Amino acid sequence: MIVITKPDVTEDKIQEIVQHIERTGVQAHVSRGTDRTVIGIIGKADPALAEHLRSMKQVENVIKISKSYKLASRDFHPDDTVIEIKGVKIGGPNLVVMGGPCAVESPEQIDEIARLVKAAGGQVLRGGAFKPRTGPYSFQGIGVEGLTMMAEAGKKHGLLTITEVMTPEYVDVCAEYADILQVGTRNMQNFDLLRRLGTIKTPVLLKRGFSATYDEFLNAAEYILAGGNPNVMLCERGIRTFETYTRNTLDLAAIPVLQSLSHLPVISDPSHGTGRRELVEPMAKASVAAGANGLIVEMHTDPDNSATGDGVQSLFPDQFAALLKDLEVIARVVGKTFETNKEPKEKFVAWKVV
Amino acid sequence: MIVITKPDVTEDKIQEIVQHIERTGVQAHVSRGTDRTVIGIIGKADPALAEHLRSMKQVENVIKISKSYKLASRDFHPDDTVIEIKGVKIGGPNLVVMGGPCAVESPEQIDEIARLVKAAGGQVLRGGAFKPRTGPYSFQGIGVEGLTMMAEAGKKHGLLTITEVMTPEYVDVCAEYADILQVGTRNMQNFDLLRRLGTIKTPVLLKRGFSATYDEFLNAAEYILAGGNPNVMLCERGIRTFETYTRNTLDLAAIPVLQSLSHLPVISDPSHGTGRRELVEPMAKASVAAGANGLIVEMHTDPDNSATGDGVQSLFPDQFAALLKDLEVIARVVGKTFETNKEPKEKFVAWKVV
Amino acid sequence: MIVITKPDVTEDKIQEIVQHIERTGVQAHVSRGTDRTVIGIIGKADPALAEHLRSMKQVENVIKISKSYKLASRDFHPDDTVIEIKGVKIGGPNLVVMGGPCAVESPEQIDEIARLVKAAGGQVLRGGAFKPRTGPYSFQGIGVEGLTMMAEAGKKHGLLTITEVMTPEYVDVCAEYADILQVGTRNMQNFDLLRRLGTIKTPVLLKRGFSATYDEFLNAAEYILAGGNPNVMLCERGIRTFETYTRNTLDLAAIPVLQSLSHLPVISDPSHGTGRRELVEPMAKASVAAGANGLIVEMHTDPDNSATGDGVQSLFPDQFAALLKDLEVIARVVGKTFETNKEPKEKFVAWKVV
Amino acid sequence: MIVITKPDVTEDKIQEIVQHIERTGVQAHVSRGTDRTVIGIIGKADPALAEHLRSMKQVENVIKISKSYKLASRDFHPDDTVIEIKGVKIGGPNLVVMGGPCAVESPEQIDEIARLVKAAGGQVLRGGAFKPRTGPYSFQGIGVEGLTMMAEAGKKHGLLTITEVMTPEYVDVCAEYADILQVGTRNMQNFDLLRRLGTIKTPVLLKRGFSATYDEFLNAAEYILAGGNPNVMLCERGIRTFETYTRNTLDLAAIPVLQSLSHLPVISDPSHGTGRRELVEPMAKASVAAGANGLIVEMHTDPDNSATGDGVQSLFPDQFAALLKDLEVIARVVGKTFETNKEPKEKFVAWKVV
Repeated sequence: MIVITKPDVTEDKIQEIVQHIERTGVQAHVSRGTDRTVIGIIGKADPALAEHLRSMKQVENVIKISKSYKLASRDFHPDDTVIEIKGVKIGGPNLVVMGGPCAVESPEQIDEIARLVKAAGGQVLRGGAFKPRTGPYSFQGIGVEGLTMMAEAGKKHGLLTITEVMTPEYVDVCAEYADILQVGTRNMQNFDLLRRLGTIKTPVLLKRGFSATYDEFLNAAEYILAGGNPNVMLCERGIRTFETYTRNTLDLAAIPVLQSLSHLPVISDPSHGTGRRELVEPMAKASVAAGANGLIVEMHTDPDNSATGDGVQSLFPDQFAALLKDLEVIARVVGKTFETNKEPKEKFVAWKVV
Repeated sequence: MIVITKPDVTEDKIQEIVQHIERTGVQAHVSRGTDRTVIGIIGKADPALAEHLRSMKQVENVIKISKSYKLASRDFHPDDTVIEIKGVKIGGPNLVVMGGPCAVESPEQIDEIARLVKAAGGQVLRGGAFKPRTGPYSFQGIGVEGLTMMAEAGKKHGLLTITEVMTPEYVDVCAEYADILQVGTRNMQNFDLLRRLGTIKTPVLLKRGFSATYDEFLNAAEYILAGGNPNVMLCERGIRTFETYTRNTLDLAAIPVLQSLSHLPVISDPSHGTGRRELVEPMAKASVAAGANGLIVEMHTDPDNSATGDGVQSLFPDQFAALLKDLEVIARVVGKTFETNKEPKEKFVAWKVV
Repeated sequence: MIVITKPDVTEDKIQEIVQHIERTGVQAHVSRGTDRTVIGIIGKADPALAEHLRSMKQVENVIKISKSYKLASRDFHPDDTVIEIKGVKIGGPNLVVMGGPCAVESPEQIDEIARLVKAAGGQVLRGGAFKPRTGPYSFQGIGVEGLTMMAEAGKKHGLLTITEVMTPEYVDVCAEYADILQVGTRNMQNFDLLRRLGTIKTPVLLKRGFSATYDEFLNAAEYILAGGNPNVMLCERGIRTFETYTRNTLDLAAIPVLQSLSHLPVISDPSHGTGRRELVEPMAKASVAAGANGLIVEMHTDPDNSATGDGVQSLFPDQFAALLKDLEVIARVVGKTFETNKEPKEKFVAWKVV
Repeated sequence: MIVITKPDVTEDKIQEIVQHIERTGVQAHVSRGTDRTVIGIIGKADPALAEHLRSMKQVENVIKISKSYKLASRDFHPDDTVIEIKGVKIGGPNLVVMGGPCAVESPEQIDEIARLVKAAGGQVLRGGAFKPRTGPYSFQGIGVEGLTMMAEAGKKHGLLTITEVMTPEYVDVCAEYADILQVGTRNMQNFDLLRRLGTIKTPVLLKRGFSATYDEFLNAAEYILAGGNPNVMLCERGIRTFETYTRNTLDLAAIPVLQSLSHLPVISDPSHGTGRRELVEPMAKASVAAGANGLIVEMHTDPDNSATGDGVQSLFPDQFAALLKDLEVIARVVGKTFETNKEPKEKFVAWKVV
């Protein structure tokens, strides 16, 4: 942490700041410039110290130079985290594709889509049973029933499953049925939910808040890691900007940035990231070219007549299959392997972090 | 709802769209332009219909012209909502000031601050017992103990109390001790929390998500209202923009806009809205000039040595007192009454919505 | 300027950085932390040095602690700048109101509006002769003819005049007819225009770019000041955010922030800042309460039938007059004087900077 | 254009609106809903009509359904524009790479870099002679001398050249020396500059304003096209968001969006779009995967010691060469051809628009 004083601060005032700092048990190192004096803090400072200093009259600015997250940072864990679930590896050089409908609607619907995801080479089946909705009068998902339908379809077709959990009290039931739990963009800073997910070992795909900085995103992941669950994937799903033509602005630079700041796998969501079907394919390809460890893509057999609100951004099955073929070539260019159509190992191996 | 077709759509395709619309039980009204055809939908359309139509190939755009919230809208409730709590009126022509520390620290701290809030003319004591924090290693509040300290101080000094509730399971305990429950900016779309708050009658101050549109904000309020709790206040607390000098950009136009779209009281938070002590006073005055129904302001007797992270934006007691004097004059210019230093009525009258 | 190294940088590498810094003629001061080393630079560093250092592999961050603007900063000029034009003072404790139509349309139109601005107590007549337009097919203003019409109306009714100049080659003709030249939001970083305005003495009202930071805004002012023209006013006119209900988000905190960073007068534009007539009045009042040195407000006798595109945000004359009455009271609360209805002194006194 | 009335507007008021519309020479078509009435306007409406209607009291909203740009739109020109310059084709299935330093520094520097751009397979040499700078005290480029150095280097090594023009009065001299003129992000709405560029035939690379919507961007292009110059390329170079880790947020969805709305070639600038060398390579690959028609990339032989401010985002020559090899593979996946290392045809063929 560095403290920058206002111009013309007297020596007395500087000593006052130094004493304030040293009372908290860390060292202060004074460096006098022509204009301003800079005081470096040496040692592990209390997070509240920064705020105290910032509110002092003679202080112009306080700059934190250490990151506030630790377990999520690559400094702490230099190698890529690879999460292995029933033989499917997520992270490192592996490319994983998660596909499926916005919401589970019926056993037939999810079974047919699972079959198509598997046939195209996807490894994970996505589908929502509980849906977060801006307004209270929109379709909110079919609930636990949907979880069982999806679990069955995943098992039958040899796919892992991922579903969204919205509140701490549903963590257990969701974890019973799904292989991966998703935290939605609106819940990225639902700290009680994050803390609850830290107490289990089920892998979590944490979506970036639509206005979250990289720093806030990694701090949210830190909540889960600090609780004891090392199986976290980060998901870029578009941020909110002034542009309204697309639903969100997919921030693809987030992929290499997060991979350099953190060891966790980074997944891209071009469906929510754009909100328009015709943009999913180019942005999926761009995500892989930018180095994503995986994709989560909406696909539906009859998007125009689906019961949920996101048909407009769902691929048709043939688009999904064609896309995965192209991704294989791009993946190779950037040193990733996309193992399509391989059977996941039969037996459950437990989560493993490499 | 209005559907706009792409240029050169054939008559057959238009009939297809019309049939699709009419199958859902509403009427379609076709209007052919030189370029595009416009199809108006007459009747109460299903929210999913918009998305279905949007995903059809021959459709260029779908525009909703009715609002998705109802109970929160002024169309539905033309008169201002005035929430009366133990004799204090919030909403309509009344100006209310809520003051107090970021976090409750000790019985002495909160008692002394309550005394000063009261002396200056404030009507409500604010203070956090549970604190939402970006990172897991920051101070998270002192919990239930803090609630009792604050309740006692409020009672002693004749002030209402407001505190933040972060998760559905804490709603009951917070409502037991506090007069108003606050939903923080990060929880504006924590739908399970909102639904839970809809089941009680304790007034709720709902903070705008730092990247929420007015429409999303009012839809979040609608969750609480639709559950059966009519006592909702909206709070503008700054939005996230590209500017980093201030912590947030306080959007004061939100005050008249929300007041025209909705009947609910609108409170402004110049402390979090700027994140800098020296800006609290001008922005508090500006909020009242813009027509706010109230303010929530951080005040601390020793902000530079508080245990919490927000000292930097807390007013000193004398600044707080001087500010309230000026607000009284400005309030009169905009037709508001600020009843400072009046004793709230002794007896609890139950929440009343006018 | 402060350089922060990456963790685990060797002593050799630190010496390399130090030598690089000292070769440019400034001193380096090394301070070793537990994690990272911080190198302070003492003396006036070349702006390019920051970028060089930032691109070195062993450097994590470079933080500038001196401001890049000088003449615009309050450090350099502690007292408020007061610009006196023909007896009207802009800046310091004076509140000035500029009113008029978006565009000059005819001699009758501008004469009648000038009369009403004067009667209401305004001091400056605004009106566009050259209009910047998003698309090439919109009305672009009536040109030089409009300048003469406005100059005449201003002279007749004892008002100063302000008009927008869009390109360096029109600076002379605009300065011939108008008392104040306005630089529009899209031209805030039209550096050739700024440089040209630095060569004259006519006061300039510089509008903030709709996505400009405070720092960029003050650097733009610095271009004009550095050229030798000290008569610059800053104008907050709304920034672009994700919210689309209002045309822009008027950032009122900019008023006290800019006044603390700079000595230049700060004017607020609630008309463009909101884009909606019903919001102009509350935001005008809020601007004055926040400490603005002046307002620029659109007013039109027949806004719904004006030839230009901004009728929707123009006040009617009676609204304008009523607003100015209220502003007088609010101005007093914040220590400003609004001299309505005073005759400006007859004789031109030349620009004076106090 | 569609007009939506407020709820409960009387039949009389609706007729008033209809008459207002029909007086301007277009037709009105009324459609009564349960809540609101919708009035469609049939025929080519005056742009000012929308604003007039919007300001009427009984009108809630006015929605434009035709685009305000015409020549730039794909509706008007369904086939891709391919600009041919001295045998190099830009647009359609061709991938073009423009490389070079931020600023021209010396004949030796630009000659050596040109050699390396050519050797790696690039087709265009970039380099700035006039530099736009936030503050007046930064390096502003070496001017006309730089143009001649770059023109010579381009000619010697068989590369086209591109340079930025900042003001109308420099258009002629820049066009004399360079093959392509670049309009920078801060000048996207410098309408006098755009108009001037419309009067020549030299191809223009128009950079997106850092906060410009797609609609504003295409309207800016329309200024050039409407003036008579059909040789316009659009360049996505990053937008301003709340994220500060990267200099800008490169909006890659802009590539397919602009290609669907317009027929003009779309170029991506991953150097300014990220502001960090380590992100240029992944974002360049992602740009091509997203379908870009070309890239403009900063490359420098000694970026850490360059005289200009952008060394931090310049690739080293070997990185640049390796990148172009990978781009060739990705280009094939998305149906683009990258003709590396081909000699451009000797003779100048004049701009051709296909």
